[in-house]
Amino acid sequence: MDQRVHEHAEVLVDWSARVEAGDDVVLSVAEGAHDLAVAVAEKLGERGANPLVTYDSDEVTRAYLRGHDGEFGTGDHELAMVENADVYLRLGGGRNTSALADVPGEVRQAHSTATAELKEARMDTDWVSTVHPTRSLAQQAGMAYEEYREFVYGAILRDWESLAAEMAGMKELLDSGSEVRLVTEGTDLTMSIENRTAVNSAASVAYDSHNLPSGEVFTAPQATEGEVFFDVPMTINGKRLRDVSLTFEGGEVVDFSAGANEEELETILGTDDGARRLGELGIGMNRGIDRFTDTVLFDEKMGDTVHLALGRAYDACLPGGEAGNESAVHVDLITDMSEGRMEIDGEVVQRNGTFRWEDGFEG
Amino acid sequence: MDQRVHEHAEVLVDWSARVEAGDDVVLSVAEGAHDLAVAVAEKLGERGANPLVTYDSDEVTRAYLRGHDGEFGTGDHELAMVENADVYLRLGGGRNTSALADVPGEVRQAHSTATAELKEARMDTDWVSTVHPTRSLAQQAGMAYEEYREFVYGAILRDWESLAAEMAGMKELLDSGSEVRLVTEGTDLTMSIENRTAVNSAASVAYDSHNLPSGEVFTAPQATEGEVFFDVPMTINGKRLRDVSLTFEGGEVVDFSAGANEEELETILGTDDGARRLGELGIGMNRGIDRFTDTVLFDEKMGDTVHLALGRAYDACLPGGEAGNESAVHVDLITDMSEGRMEIDGEVVQRNGTFRWEDGFEG
Repeated sequence: MDQRVHEHAEVLVDWSARVEAGDDVVLSVAEGAHDLAVAVAEKLGERGANPLVTYDSDEVTRAYLRGHDGEFGTGDHELAMVENADVYLRLGGGRNTSALADVPGEVRQAHSTATAELKEARMDTDWVSTVHPTRSLAQQAGMAYEEYREFVYGAILRDWESLAAEMAGMKELLDSGSEVRLVTEGTDLTMSIENRTAVNSAASVAYDSHNLPSGEVFTAPQATEGEVFFDVPMTINGKRLRDVSLTFEGGEVVDFSAGANEEELETILGTDDGARRLGELGIGMNRGIDRFTDTVLFDEKMGDTVHLALGRAYDACLPGGEAGNESAVHVDLITDMSEGRMEIDGEVVQRNGTFRWEDGFEG
Repeated sequence: MDQRVHEHAEVLVDWSARVEAGDDVVLSVAEGAHDLAVAVAEKLGERGANPLVTYDSDEVTRAYLRGHDGEFGTGDHELAMVENADVYLRLGGGRNTSALADVPGEVRQAHSTATAELKEARMDTDWVSTVHPTRSLAQQAGMAYEEYREFVYGAILRDWESLAAEMAGMKELLDSGSEVRLVTEGTDLTMSIENRTAVNSAASVAYDSHNLPSGEVFTAPQATEGEVFFDVPMTINGKRLRDVSLTFEGGEVVDFSAGANEEELETILGTDDGARRLGELGIGMNRGIDRFTDTVLFDEKMGDTVHLALGRAYDACLPGGEAGNESAVHVDLITDMSEGRMEIDGEVVQRNGTFRWEDGFEG
């Protein structure tokens, strides 16, 4: 087996999930993630954890959902399993990203609603989601298999300790700042971040970060004003949005356009009041992610990008007890910052993709 | 997908496990059993059950066992899952029957001992064990893949209702009889079955039968006298036993020999006192199993065979409260009955493989 698979397993178990002896671990394995499961199981053995391996197969799920009449229940056995788990490791990596394409959306929605309690219980564990590079995901990214493996391990096998330290600096700037301004071609946007707490998402439960790879610092902006242009395409609900422009007044979207699938953007904005306000400002800082692959897990952490999400804000960014923007949606849209600047309280902290603490920064 | 996979799933869910709406089902899937898992998931959807799919991978298990220091624990999450399950379906079918070959026996034993509570809890569910035909199992059976699939579905896709009725007749004969005598080349053996209750093992939890395929009637004999020759080879603990002869006096083995691996037979007999007495007399009645494949799940149910087990007896065969033969082992050995006879209380009930209720029986 490729040595990188073992290294991936070690980062996941030790850096991300912080597994300790005696931990009860659910190891959820997608159809194509067998090799990573083997490597993770070895590490879990070495750490003295107790793994329970589940099979997260889209084809099995499709058959079940299509066979069912739609009145779904939650299994007591599954709820009991999750409630008794310390750690939940999700190894993604399917064999066909369209495996659920012929399951009606309302059936998926009904199942998701019926099992919401399970999802809540999973969030109460030390959960981490990662992916094993499969041919199917390479295809989704428009890359050759070996090329895609290079890409994935480049994003995952980082010096996380040092990236976490760098991101801590960014978090400090955001925590002590009041206003962020983004300026790029087509974008001049200001947001208030007063009294908000940024999350240093360093791919570890120790940082309240649950994705591997991660590598972003995010907060919950408000009172957004101005225009923003998202030059990175994103696939939302199976529709590819391109060249999205939004105009904000008093924190709310008052005008919008898209170069493709504008009606999908309109649907998103019409979901509820919160869908017209921002829930997240995220600053991508993972320089191991050097291209867009049409997978949000990777794209939004890419170095030299910023993403803004319409909809729900994360509680972790808000002062204790205060509720942030509420919405049924959380839709990330990405802007390339390699030509442009980010200011905090009038001071430039990033210009043309270079942060002010990096070599070559021109303030 | 082969229509027989769907038929297998239907027999498993409806005849064997009697799954009902709302049942919480654990679906344990071996590495090579994906297709059967898909077909079973569809049926579980149709019945309105709640499946939780686990991945029973020998390679994952090997990595975990080899990584661990040997002081194993039981996961509370796994115990909670099993204790809350109504049904446990085990879909066997690996990709390499030797996948655990380099895990030391004592490590496997330590893990098995540490997780005994889990096994007990599984036995308290409506559990059923079956196999999906894989190339690895075909190889183990010395058969081509397509040939092996024919064989497996021939054994599983039976008219179980009618076989259960036929086996009920055999059970009645055993329940009302006092003594069984087996006579074949090299065999003349008598056993008392007085006050014992036979089990009609008809591949359904409704019959206290947990294997698919099944198709045997078994009871717990005692006071065995005489000689028996087992002409069917059996692999026990990785050793292939051939041409085993046993001589019984007063219910105990007093002499033995084997054509190959006699020292393994000696080890079994030396385990404890109970290992020298019989725990089971089983009568194979599944005519869909027409050849030996070196897998006890199939071999012991073959029509025209009888198997005797050294060691532990099943409680179900004993009068309420009475303990049968106790032992740490239960080792099945098989004799071909196609030339010979079985008598109950002096009356011939099977001659040359034909039961007395069948055409061509010569009493």
